[in-house]
Amino acid sequence: MRSVSIIGAGTTPFGEHWEKSFRELIAEAGTAALQSSGLAGKDIQAIYGGCMASGRFIGQEHIGALIADQLGLNPIPATRVEAACASGGVALRNAYLVVSSGAYDVVAVGGIEKMTEVSTEEAAIALGGAGDQETELFHGASFPALYALIARRHMYEFGTTEEQMALCAVKNHRNATGNPNAQYRKEITLEDVMQSGYVASPLKLLDCSPITDGAAALILCSTEKAKKMGFDNAIEIIGSAQASDSLALTGRKSLTEMLATKVAVKEAYAQASVKPSDIDFAEVHDCFTIAEILAIEDLGFFKKGEGGKATEEGRTALNAEISINPSGGLKAKGHPVGATGIAQAAEACMQLLGKANGRQVKGAEIGLTHNVGGSGATAAIHIFRRMQ
Amino acid sequence: MRSVSIIGAGTTPFGEHWEKSFRELIAEAGTAALQSSGLAGKDIQAIYGGCMASGRFIGQEHIGALIADQLGLNPIPATRVEAACASGGVALRNAYLVVSSGAYDVVAVGGIEKMTEVSTEEAAIALGGAGDQETELFHGASFPALYALIARRHMYEFGTTEEQMALCAVKNHRNATGNPNAQYRKEITLEDVMQSGYVASPLKLLDCSPITDGAAALILCSTEKAKKMGFDNAIEIIGSAQASDSLALTGRKSLTEMLATKVAVKEAYAQASVKPSDIDFAEVHDCFTIAEILAIEDLGFFKKGEGGKATEEGRTALNAEISINPSGGLKAKGHPVGATGIAQAAEACMQLLGKANGRQVKGAEIGLTHNVGGSGATAAIHIFRRMQ
Repeated sequence: MRSVSIIGAGTTPFGEHWEKSFRELIAEAGTAALQSSGLAGKDIQAIYGGCMASGRFIGQEHIGALIADQLGLNPIPATRVEAACASGGVALRNAYLVVSSGAYDVVAVGGIEKMTEVSTEEAAIALGGAGDQETELFHGASFPALYALIARRHMYEFGTTEEQMALCAVKNHRNATGNPNAQYRKEITLEDVMQSGYVASPLKLLDCSPITDGAAALILCSTEKAKKMGFDNAIEIIGSAQASDSLALTGRKSLTEMLATKVAVKEAYAQASVKPSDIDFAEVHDCFTIAEILAIEDLGFFKKGEGGKATEEGRTALNAEISINPSGGLKAKGHPVGATGIAQAAEACMQLLGKANGRQVKGAEIGLTHNVGGSGATAAIHIFRRMQ
Repeated sequence: MRSVSIIGAGTTPFGEHWEKSFRELIAEAGTAALQSSGLAGKDIQAIYGGCMASGRFIGQEHIGALIADQLGLNPIPATRVEAACASGGVALRNAYLVVSSGAYDVVAVGGIEKMTEVSTEEAAIALGGAGDQETELFHGASFPALYALIARRHMYEFGTTEEQMALCAVKNHRNATGNPNAQYRKEITLEDVMQSGYVASPLKLLDCSPITDGAAALILCSTEKAKKMGFDNAIEIIGSAQASDSLALTGRKSLTEMLATKVAVKEAYAQASVKPSDIDFAEVHDCFTIAEILAIEDLGFFKKGEGGKATEEGRTALNAEISINPSGGLKAKGHPVGATGIAQAAEACMQLLGKANGRQVKGAEIGLTHNVGGSGATAAIHIFRRMQ
């Protein structure tokens, strides 16, 4: 297993792209990643693409072939990976594995979702397919409801408050003001969140990540080859892991921790030979604010039950104890589900290269991305540093 | 890159499983594969699952996690791969790569589709997502229409006849009489096919593969470890390759050959150090009869344009010059799209182990599987022999 580095990254702006098609978003992100690497299309040997629900959103499957086609990269192998909202992270994991193995030297990996082609109600039903259709969605438990159950239990067990959850959103919106590609580049106040309407109590509208269109792409290369090619600004993937948990909440041992995250991050820390306190920043999966609180606990940054308090104390703010979601996170950067895991990694590259401008984590040396599928049934974790 | 072998295989019967759920089909195939390997669930280190359109068919995505959950295999990584009707073959390719790389020693790979939960019209629309939604399906070109264009051009260029196409179906139905898991285990005559109604001229109802429910699974293991564990009846994967082509027919240089198949099989032959004449049998992607004719030409078994004539002359019949689709193929065994590529490999195992009973290819030593996505935009090829 060889070391693998990222030698190019690109993302589209995230938002409601009424004027752009699925194919155009792919072209934009793919071309940006390729240009940032300085390579040509002919240098790419295989493609992985994360996409959750294109069948429901735009009536299109066979997304791997579509990506290759749109980028003019036929006849190389092109594979779509789907793991709900962790589709991007799992695509990255698989692209990492095929480069690490020596099967390929240079691989493009992307993520894409075009969610605004259907009504919000249809989008909610499509997204419900990330949970258990039979025992959850069919009975009306859409995703806000599932995370509301998690939030309510976390409040009961640990005294976490609605204000503490709301402060995740406030922080992430503040971070997003420094991110030109973010969907929401404006600050919100604690009062804004607290006064927004309940979607599924205790979660309010501003506790929820939005419906978003967007794409992101990376070019992966074996570190050895990247060095030979003269790259001196590559980002090495020093940890990569993926784990699963029961699809439905009812199968979990605990509602207040995500086993898949804990298993995957343990493996990633071991591979990278780092510990939680070594991480300078993390892009975590805040599809709902409570998810960020669980994440910063399960990733080992704070003790179980203390994530809400840590957020309230400002310990997760930009350039505080650990910068959580400097990009603005899913909440404010936006959450085009299949693209999110790749966009997180693209953000890690920007931070580690010192190119994150208004949201820069000072002196960032090691970053982590945490991408979750459904209510926690899949987790993909990656750890990055500058190529040594 | 290490050698990889199949140490267990299982399939459900293929057909209209009104009485079984998606989850039950997974449990049945997964358990059968595991039992045939003699391993326990705890021995499996990762899962790959091919599935095309579960979002459209049953409202469920996140199929990797669902498979792990259903088989009690959490928290191991579980990844769904989608490549339209080549989802199974591409899942196998990816499972092969992660074992070959040394990332994992023992991996389960499955394929699943439950297609009868929706109307035939809804199924046709879902399947249309395998082609180009924008330039084909939206304008009414469903899959029979796309393959009808291919057929018409093949007839025009090479004089291929409707009778020659029909004889693929006749042969495959005959083969399926020896396959207890096949959807249609009855012979049909040339007259039956010729008198069946046109679906999209020149393709008639009995030129088309059916709507099918089913699942199949394999257990992959590094060949070295399989030998250490005492397996003496494993099937080695000696060639594995995947390629892409333009999603829409309009982007192809030729309608009468599939570039993805040609690129992939060339690579697979080179890896396996075999030539077309070394292949004793092939499970090819006969979603329509014309697709079998293209396949046996593009795979190098017959010259371009001579596939129809070769079929008419009986050269592709069971135990003739080369046994094509001894299982009954997609036409008669059935075509649960995400499962097909895995079921093809399971058939190769049965044949090479001499366990194919009424459809046994005598003295079979080397077999090939050919799995196509859409109208040819993805091809996955695998070549197998008994572990030496």
